Amino acid sequence: MIEMPSLVDQYCHGVLRTELGLGTFESYLGRDTGPPAPGTTFFDTQTGFAVRRWCPPLLGLEPHCPPARYLARRRELGVVESARLLLRGTGVSTYLVDTGLPGDLTGPEEMAAAGAADAREIVRLELLAEQVADTSGTVESFLANLAEAVHAASCTAVAFASVACVRHGPALAPEPPGPGEVRGAAGRWLAARQVGGRLSDPVLLRHLLWNAVASGLPLQLRVGVGDPLLLTDFAAAATGHGTDLVLLHAYPYHRQAAHLASIHPHVYADLGPAVAHTGARAAAVLAEILELAPFGKLLFSSGGYGVPELHVVGARGFREALERVLGDWVRDGAWSRTDADRVAGMIAAGNARRVYRLDAS
Amino acid sequence: MIEMPSLVDQYCHGVLRTELGLGTFESYLGRDTGPPAPGTTFFDTQTGFAVRRWCPPLLGLEPHCPPARYLARRRELGVVESARLLLRGTGVSTYLVDTGLPGDLTGPEEMAAAGAADAREIVRLELLAEQVADTSGTVESFLANLAEAVHAASCTAVAFASVACVRHGPALAPEPPGPGEVRGAAGRWLAARQVGGRLSDPVLLRHLLWNAVASGLPLQLRVGVGDPLLLTDFAAAATGHGTDLVLLHAYPYHRQAAHLASIHPHVYADLGPAVAHTGARAAAVLAEILELAPFGKLLFSSGGYGVPELHVVGARGFREALERVLGDWVRDGAWSRTDADRVAGMIAAGNARRVYRLDAS
Amino acid sequence: MIEMPSLVDQYCHGVLRTELGLGTFESYLGRDTGPPAPGTTFFDTQTGFAVRRWCPPLLGLEPHCPPARYLARRRELGVVESARLLLRGTGVSTYLVDTGLPGDLTGPEEMAAAGAADAREIVRLELLAEQVADTSGTVESFLANLAEAVHAASCTAVAFASVACVRHGPALAPEPPGPGEVRGAAGRWLAARQVGGRLSDPVLLRHLLWNAVASGLPLQLRVGVGDPLLLTDFAAAATGHGTDLVLLHAYPYHRQAAHLASIHPHVYADLGPAVAHTGARAAAVLAEILELAPFGKLLFSSGGYGVPELHVVGARGFREALERVLGDWVRDGAWSRTDADRVAGMIAAGNARRVYRLDAS
Repeated sequence: MIEMPSLVDQYCHGVLRTELGLGTFESYLGRDTGPPAPGTTFFDTQTGFAVRRWCPPLLGLEPHCPPARYLARRRELGVVESARLLLRGTGVSTYLVDTGLPGDLTGPEEMAAAGAADAREIVRLELLAEQVADTSGTVESFLANLAEAVHAASCTAVAFASVACVRHGPALAPEPPGPGEVRGAAGRWLAARQVGGRLSDPVLLRHLLWNAVASGLPLQLRVGVGDPLLLTDFAAAATGHGTDLVLLHAYPYHRQAAHLASIHPHVYADLGPAVAHTGARAAAVLAEILELAPFGKLLFSSGGYGVPELHVVGARGFREALERVLGDWVRDGAWSRTDADRVAGMIAAGNARRVYRLDAS
Repeated sequence: MIEMPSLVDQYCHGVLRTELGLGTFESYLGRDTGPPAPGTTFFDTQTGFAVRRWCPPLLGLEPHCPPARYLARRRELGVVESARLLLRGTGVSTYLVDTGLPGDLTGPEEMAAAGAADAREIVRLELLAEQVADTSGTVESFLANLAEAVHAASCTAVAFASVACVRHGPALAPEPPGPGEVRGAAGRWLAARQVGGRLSDPVLLRHLLWNAVASGLPLQLRVGVGDPLLLTDFAAAATGHGTDLVLLHAYPYHRQAAHLASIHPHVYADLGPAVAHTGARAAAVLAEILELAPFGKLLFSSGGYGVPELHVVGARGFREALERVLGDWVRDGAWSRTDADRVAGMIAAGNARRVYRLDAS
Repeated sequence: MIEMPSLVDQYCHGVLRTELGLGTFESYLGRDTGPPAPGTTFFDTQTGFAVRRWCPPLLGLEPHCPPARYLARRRELGVVESARLLLRGTGVSTYLVDTGLPGDLTGPEEMAAAGAADAREIVRLELLAEQVADTSGTVESFLANLAEAVHAASCTAVAFASVACVRHGPALAPEPPGPGEVRGAAGRWLAARQVGGRLSDPVLLRHLLWNAVASGLPLQLRVGVGDPLLLTDFAAAATGHGTDLVLLHAYPYHRQAAHLASIHPHVYADLGPAVAHTGARAAAVLAEILELAPFGKLLFSSGGYGVPELHVVGARGFREALERVLGDWVRDGAWSRTDADRVAGMIAAGNARRVYRLDAS
């Protein structure tokens, strides 16, 4: 058995505060907002099977019990008690919570209380800019307020997160946009925008990214569906600012993300969905990421969102996968037991503690 | 042991009606029309080794006997009796046969008789258009005859197949071309074309695809060599027409195909060559496809073509791979035995029966 | 146990002639020229762990001993004796050495003497052109001297190597540039260049590639980071010249490289870094390459460079990986023992002996 500390979940969201119907719960097992195909259910996925493996025992049921029985038990306990039991079963001692998703979701303090853990905030750049735009009257005030908001967030948050690569594609121009370019783009966006309108202008997305790079706080980049090697030029441009980049959600391009982490000192790779969404395959996918990435550059996350079951399957699946992969290598003589325990500790918690300066703050 | 029904082979071709020489047989083990490199043979491939594993026992020989001995036995039995013995050893009870490849190949009825199975036709769109062009004198009659031919095929076939992404690349413009555009392209193609000439004009390829989408019959798309994520825009445009898209031949981008199947309700992924061509690796590749794809969205096929040995290795390799993968997960406690049997039945036959409405027709 | 001959290492470099400090040694375990990230070390990588697995026993220490202890022992023995002990522990009987990297590196003769093996030279095209440019006064003399240098090298070397795809990206125009185009590009490059300046002009890179193709010597192409399918057009254009192309360094696109090797008779795939850099994962990665590539088209290499430890981990890791993969397939009944031994011999040495005509010269 590999020894492993309690986990730092370096990227997740809050959970819904309200009771869920069966269809709503199922939709959180799917990977998009649409319904399942006729004749199918999102329970018939690796995520669905992993939920039925890990979660029923935490609520007093046998593993793999039918979905209807599980949901009945969940309703019986209520949303608050279910969340408490589930989050306390994750083995996570620190949650880093991206608060930038819509919905009636728990914030970091509630996650901490429910899970008997610490929790810290990750600020999503695009939402921050949209909120600033909602309350700024002119281009000048928008840009000044935005700079101030980024600075203020950098004093309280542990990281910034960005979906620029999802909204625009990963092939963003790598260099920072010039001041005139930014003013022009801001003017056009603000003029066309209604309150709550989303930011997808590439110049403003890049402006945000470079504001975050300048803050010195680690910057988490959702890669979106596409080869993260398209981020090579941005990663190169962001070298030497003292800011770490953490690539989120690279699967099925996780080997490419590991490659980037291996050639850039300031680039890190998240294990999140690659492991959390693949259920019985988590160990196999984790092993692929461990091929090229330096072991000091990998960070566990659950990516959990909306229902605490996703935090559970992310964390329990990861722990089992890591034990299996490293345990096999020790048994084969490829790794020493001492090294395996040490690397397990790094990926489970130590790397995140160092990158996000969790012990210093 | 996982329980599994007899298989629906959702995509294959007929087998040659005539006796084959050694060189001809070997060419069907290769992946292109060229010869093997000097000093090498296509028998030294996973496909070649899989043929020697599964087929000799069906003809009364020991597994892995030398190629020359196997081919001698095949000649001794004759092409008809060999096909009968081999196809009856596949465990397939329904063949869906793409009749759009050249050569003296058996049609669905002959496949059914030889294999003691059912067989249904898949109509290849490009060949249909080429046949219509051979007998149409004007642009107007070509387009009218084509519409009629697509409609007629949709009444008898179980699916359309298209090689548009192979002939033009997967980055086809996603929307249907306008009528004027289609007439112009048809005029140019018909004027330049000789009898039997192939269709590769992108406007006409898209016209065909959208005719098929409008028919309501499932549309099988050969992805060609390239990332199926390039089909994202076409898949999105084809949403809501009630027509299912089945991605064929995505390996080595099978994880990307599984991703598309996971985010679009109407997109399905074929297991075909990914499993049929990889021999001893079939279980490993199958397991990768099972990471992200909802289990209701995966369809077995052999892709067999020309020699019945390819139908055998596709079917036997798939069955062994699925038993191994799901059996391991049950032994590890990751899946329940009940779920494993149920998912095996879905992938082996149930999903295909539902998508192609095989029980209704 | 699979039987395997001594290895032909079809692509490696020499080792440093001078003693190394701890930091310098560590830098050879990284994948780029930069330092490790703060708080991390390149010893914490699969390469680092593989070095600590395979090398200490060759120097009289226990496997997995701490880095400091290993480096102390290495200093105690001295650089020459360490190299001798390590290279004699590789199980390699022939090294093909790319002499085109900078640094005080041993040449083929010294590699042969240290390793008690044969060694032959691989000539790197771009360095050859740069050396010719250093001593040529005019465009005419440069082009004439270059043609002569390529011809001379083709009489003594066993292969050419090119980094054109790394310097320019793999999407080079596939056809040979015309004479006027080449003269123009040469004029501009020579005029702008200082002594020692690197060649990255795409026209001259293509000119070099086609000179190599015309020589008939196998041409090794470093794929660089990117999908080798971008080389499809060049591979097609180079068909029929009697010259073999060997794709180097395709990981994480090794399945795509195997695909190219499966459809072009003259294309081969290197196993090098895919296996040498992935340590405990070498067997898993090797198995992926064995999915599609004909077994006569795969070539072992270590890619070793600078420190002989990399030649050791490449060779020992490959041997163990191949024994494990093929051994498993034999135990499963997927392959016969005879076939497994035969394929092991092909990949370990036989294919390289045939492609590089090692027995003829």
